[in-house]
Amino acid sequence: MTYTAPLADMRFALREVAGLQRVAALPGYEHATDDTIDAVLEEAAKLAGNGLAPLNREGDKVGAKLENGVVRTAPGFAGIYKEFVDGGWNSLPFDPEFGGQGMPWLLAATVQEMWQAANMGFGLVLLLNQGAIDAIHHHGSPQQKATYLPKMISGEWTGTMNLTEPQAGSDLAQLKSRAVKAGDHYRITGQKIFITYGEHDMTENIVHLVLARTPDAPAGVRGISLFIVPKFLPGADGKPGQRNDLRCVSLEHKLGIHASPTCVMSFGDGGGAVGYLVGEEGRGLSYMFTMMNNARLSVGIQGLAIAERAYQQASAFAKTRVQSKDDGSPQPEPVAIIRHADIRRMLMTMRAQIEAMRALGYYTAAGIDGALKHPDRDAARKIQDRVDLLIPIVKAWFTDLGNEIASLGVQVHGGMGFIEETGAAQHLRDARILPIYEGTNGIQARDLVGRKVAKDGGETMLSLVAEMRALAKEMTTAPGDDLASIRSSLGAAADALEDATRWVAQSVKADLVAALAGSVPFLRLAGTALGGWLLAKGALAAQSKLAGRDGDPTFLEAKIVTARFYAEVVLPPALAQLGPLQAAGRTVFALPEALL
Amino acid sequence: MTYTAPLADMRFALREVAGLQRVAALPGYEHATDDTIDAVLEEAAKLAGNGLAPLNREGDKVGAKLENGVVRTAPGFAGIYKEFVDGGWNSLPFDPEFGGQGMPWLLAATVQEMWQAANMGFGLVLLLNQGAIDAIHHHGSPQQKATYLPKMISGEWTGTMNLTEPQAGSDLAQLKSRAVKAGDHYRITGQKIFITYGEHDMTENIVHLVLARTPDAPAGVRGISLFIVPKFLPGADGKPGQRNDLRCVSLEHKLGIHASPTCVMSFGDGGGAVGYLVGEEGRGLSYMFTMMNNARLSVGIQGLAIAERAYQQASAFAKTRVQSKDDGSPQPEPVAIIRHADIRRMLMTMRAQIEAMRALGYYTAAGIDGALKHPDRDAARKIQDRVDLLIPIVKAWFTDLGNEIASLGVQVHGGMGFIEETGAAQHLRDARILPIYEGTNGIQARDLVGRKVAKDGGETMLSLVAEMRALAKEMTTAPGDDLASIRSSLGAAADALEDATRWVAQSVKADLVAALAGSVPFLRLAGTALGGWLLAKGALAAQSKLAGRDGDPTFLEAKIVTARFYAEVVLPPALAQLGPLQAAGRTVFALPEALL
Repeated sequence: MTYTAPLADMRFALREVAGLQRVAALPGYEHATDDTIDAVLEEAAKLAGNGLAPLNREGDKVGAKLENGVVRTAPGFAGIYKEFVDGGWNSLPFDPEFGGQGMPWLLAATVQEMWQAANMGFGLVLLLNQGAIDAIHHHGSPQQKATYLPKMISGEWTGTMNLTEPQAGSDLAQLKSRAVKAGDHYRITGQKIFITYGEHDMTENIVHLVLARTPDAPAGVRGISLFIVPKFLPGADGKPGQRNDLRCVSLEHKLGIHASPTCVMSFGDGGGAVGYLVGEEGRGLSYMFTMMNNARLSVGIQGLAIAERAYQQASAFAKTRVQSKDDGSPQPEPVAIIRHADIRRMLMTMRAQIEAMRALGYYTAAGIDGALKHPDRDAARKIQDRVDLLIPIVKAWFTDLGNEIASLGVQVHGGMGFIEETGAAQHLRDARILPIYEGTNGIQARDLVGRKVAKDGGETMLSLVAEMRALAKEMTTAPGDDLASIRSSLGAAADALEDATRWVAQSVKADLVAALAGSVPFLRLAGTALGGWLLAKGALAAQSKLAGRDGDPTFLEAKIVTARFYAEVVLPPALAQLGPLQAAGRTVFALPEALL
Repeated sequence: MTYTAPLADMRFALREVAGLQRVAALPGYEHATDDTIDAVLEEAAKLAGNGLAPLNREGDKVGAKLENGVVRTAPGFAGIYKEFVDGGWNSLPFDPEFGGQGMPWLLAATVQEMWQAANMGFGLVLLLNQGAIDAIHHHGSPQQKATYLPKMISGEWTGTMNLTEPQAGSDLAQLKSRAVKAGDHYRITGQKIFITYGEHDMTENIVHLVLARTPDAPAGVRGISLFIVPKFLPGADGKPGQRNDLRCVSLEHKLGIHASPTCVMSFGDGGGAVGYLVGEEGRGLSYMFTMMNNARLSVGIQGLAIAERAYQQASAFAKTRVQSKDDGSPQPEPVAIIRHADIRRMLMTMRAQIEAMRALGYYTAAGIDGALKHPDRDAARKIQDRVDLLIPIVKAWFTDLGNEIASLGVQVHGGMGFIEETGAAQHLRDARILPIYEGTNGIQARDLVGRKVAKDGGETMLSLVAEMRALAKEMTTAPGDDLASIRSSLGAAADALEDATRWVAQSVKADLVAALAGSVPFLRLAGTALGGWLLAKGALAAQSKLAGRDGDPTFLEAKIVTARFYAEVVLPPALAQLGPLQAAGRTVFALPEALL
C-alpha cells in the first residue's frame, strides 16, 4: 500500500506528449528550467511517497471527527500539512506578486497527480484552496487580494467553496442563502451542504467563499453574488481576529474520502456572518465559472491519480501472489498470478488507460499555460477554446476511468480485494465521488455538447480530428507492425470522432434533447479517441528516440506496445458508441416515466 | 430504500421467455400449477418487501459481531430467519423425500431474486445452505442424508462451504488442511478463510462441509476429500449433541455484505474436529463441482437482484428530486430529474440490462429443470450442455452488470449517492463481492473458453446462434420499426457471436494463452448478445399479445421499446469486443512483467 510517483512515465508525458519545452519557453516561465522542474518533481515524489501515502489508510479508517464544533483531522494530517506549507508546495503555480512561485500549471498538474495519488483525502484541501485563490485572484478587490492571497497561497489559511444547498445541487438557480448589506459588508445567513474541509484543525483560519442571494436580487442565477466569509475576520494586522458567525454543524457519513471532512455549514445562526462582496452583485455564478477549468482539470487529475494508485497496488499484488500453474509453460508449479493471461489483461487495461489519461491531462494543462502566456493573443484564444473543449472530457472521462480502474484493482486481488485491510477497496470508495462532484459527469457531457461543441459547430473538435489525421499521415513511414496497427486505429478513431462531432453539432441545434441523450456516450468516445491520439504521438516519439538510440530502449518499447494494446483492445468498444449516441435520443424517452 | 418485487416483469420473463409452462409440464412437477406458482410468487414478494428489505440498511450498519467466540447477527436477522423457516421458504426446490417441496428450480431462482434483492447480507445464508444440501444430496451416504438433509432443507440447520485457505484461493490444489482417519470418522485440523455464515446465532446447529487432505493423499487436487464437520455432533436422537472442535476466530472487515459474517474458521485446535467423509477419499473437488452450477446460477441471480434493487431506488429518487428545467419544454420551472435526458439514459440502461439478465437467468434456471426432468435423456443431455455453457456467463456477466448498475444507481443520486444514509452506496459495496466469490469472473471466463467451448468445438454455443437466427427470421414479418430494429441488431449479434465462438474454439486448441487473454471480452460479448436474443424473443411475444389484445398494452409496449433500447444502445459496444478479444492474446504479454 505504498505509492511511488511514476517519474519516468510523467517525464515522458511532459516532454514527448504535452510539450513541456514549449511551455517552459513561454514568456513568464523563464525560471521553469529543466533543472528546476526535475528538482520539483523529485522532491514532490519524496513527500508524496514518504509523507502523504503512509497516512492514507489511517485517514480512511479514523477519518475526520466533529466534536463540540471542532473538526479533528485524522492522525498525522495536521503535521504533514505543516510540512507541506513549510516546503512551499502550496504556492507552486500562483502569482509571484502574492508569494506564489509562478510555475507552469503543467508542472502543478503533474505534482497534483502525486498528492492525489498519495492521499486523496488530504489532497482535497489543496484543491479547494486552489479554487478559492483563483476566484479571489480574478475577481477580488486589490485590498481583498492583499489580505487573503498571501495567506492562502502560502497555505497558512485554506479556502473553501460554499455552493450546494439541500434543494440546490446541480441547479444553483435554486439557492436560498441570503446576504443583506450592512455598511461595508454583508450579513450572510443560510445552510450549505457538502462543504469540503469546511472546518478543520490544520490552519489558523479558513476563508469561505459563499454564494448567496441579496434581498431584491432577481430569481435564478442572475441573483446570486459571491462573498468572502472568513472563519476569523482578519484584523488590521492581517491576523485572524474576531470569530465569525458560522459553524460546521455536522459531518457527512460518506462512502469514501473519510479523511476529508464534508461539512454541513451553518451561516448566521447568531444574526448573520460577516461577508465581503467579491466583485459586483449578481455576478457570483459567472465568477465561479472562471475557476472551473482549473478545478475540473484537478478533479480529472484525481481520477488519473487514484487509477495510478490502484494500479500500483494491483501490480505489486499480482507479482507476489502465487496461484495456479502457468498456462504457457509445462511446469506444474503455481506461479505469480501476473503470469496469467487475464490478470495481465486487467493490468494492461489499467496501465494503457492511465497513460492515455496522463497524456491528455498534461496536454490540457499545457493548454492552460499556453492560453495564459502565449504572446500571440489570437493563438492564445485558440488554445483557450481547445482547453474549454477538453476540460469536461478530462473531468468526466478520467473520473469514470478512475472508478473502472479502481474496480479492476480490487478484482486483481481476488478475495483479498474485498477486505478493507488490503486497501484496494478504499481506492474504489474514494474514487466514487469523482464522477459526482465539481459538476456530475452528466453535467460535463452537457457542457461538452450543449456549450462547447454547440458554440462553434464542432470546429474546435474537428481541429483536433485534423491533428489526429496529420499524425496518422506522419506515421505512414514509421517502421514495424506496432506503429502500423496504432496508425490504423488512429484513423478509425479520427473517423468516428468526426462523424460523432458532426452529428452532435447538427443535433444540438435541431433537437437539443436528442443531443443531450447521446452526450455521455459522445464524451466517452471523444475521450477514448483523443487519448489514443496522444498515445500514438508518444509511440511515434518513442520510435524516433529508439532509432536515434536516445533513452532506455526497454522503456521506449513499452510506450509503443502499450499504445498498441490501447489501440486494439481499449479503443474499439468506445468507437462503437457512435451508433448508441445517435440512437439514444430516439429511445431514452420511449418508455413512459410511470413505467420506469 | 424499499423493495417491491417486480412481479409483472418476473411473470413475463417466466412465461414468455423462460418457458414456465414447458417446465411445469415436466414429469415430477405436476404440483407446480399456475395457481401454486402465483401464490408462491405473491407470498414471497410480501416477505421480501415487508420482512427482509427493511432490515437491509441496519444489517449493513450494525453488521455481524464476534464476541467471545459467538457471532451475533444484525438486529432482526434471527427473527426473520425463523419466520423464513416457519414459512417453509427454505425447502422450495429440494427433494420431497427429505422434506423439500420439489418445486422447479426456475421458481426457486425467481424467489431467490427476491430474497437477494431485499437483503443480500441475509440471502447469503440461504445460498450457502443450498450448496451444502446439494453436496450431501448427491454424494452423502443414506445415513448422512437421513441425518442432515431434513434439518438443512427445513432450514433448522444451515450449511457452509469451507474451501479457501490463505495460500489456496482460486488454486485449491494448494490446500493444506488435514484429515486423519480415526475409526468411523476423521480428525480435521486446519484454518479456513472467507467462510460465509461460518458461525451465527440463527440456528441450533451449523453443518460445515470442509475440504481437507488425508495424510498419504497425492499432491494436487486428487488428494482432496470432502468432510461433513458439524458444529454440534448429532446424537442418536438426531439432535445437536457434543460440541465439535472448531470455532470462528475472527470476522473479516469487508467492503460490503456486512450483515453476512465472513469467518476465519479454525478446526482442531483442541486436537482435531470430528469429520465424516462424504463419498470416497480423493474425490472432494469433483463433488464440489456437482453443486457448482446451482451455486453459480445463484450468484448470478444476486447480480441481477442487486441491480434491480439499485434501479428501484434510483428510479424513485429521480421521480422526486427536482432540479433544473426540462430541456424539452419552454417552462422555466425546475422539474423532477427523471425528465432529463441523461438521467433517463441511465435508468433505461439499468432497466434494459436488468430485463436481459432476468431473461437469461430464468432461461438458464429452466434449463436446470429440463436437464433434471426431461423424459428423453438425449434431450436432457443437450439441455445440460447448454446449461453448462450458460452458467459461467450468467455468473460473470450478471455480476459485472450488478456492479455497473449499482454504480449508475449512485450516479443518479448525485451527491446524495455518496452519503451512506441514502443507501445507494451500500448496493455498490455489496455488489463488489459478486465478481469475486464462487470463482472470480476471470475463472468463469476461463471455464467458458477452456472447458465449455473447448469441449465441443463451440457446437453448443453455435446451436444458440442458430436459435438467434431462427428468431430473427421469424421476426421478418413482424410489423413496425421497433421490431425491425431489434431484428437487425439480433442478426448482428448472431454474426458477432458466431465469429467470436469460431475464433475461440480454434484458438483454444492452437494457442491456449491467446484464447484465455480474450476470454473475458468473449464472455461479455456472449452475455450481451444472448441477453439481446431473449429480449427480442420477449418483444416478439409482446407484439403478438398486443395484436391479440391479450394483456396490458402499456406494459407490452414497454417490453418492445426496452428491447429496442438494448439493441441500439447496449449491444453495439459489446459486439465491438470481437476485435479486442482476438487482439488480446497478441498484446497482453507484450510488456515485460518487470515494467508493469
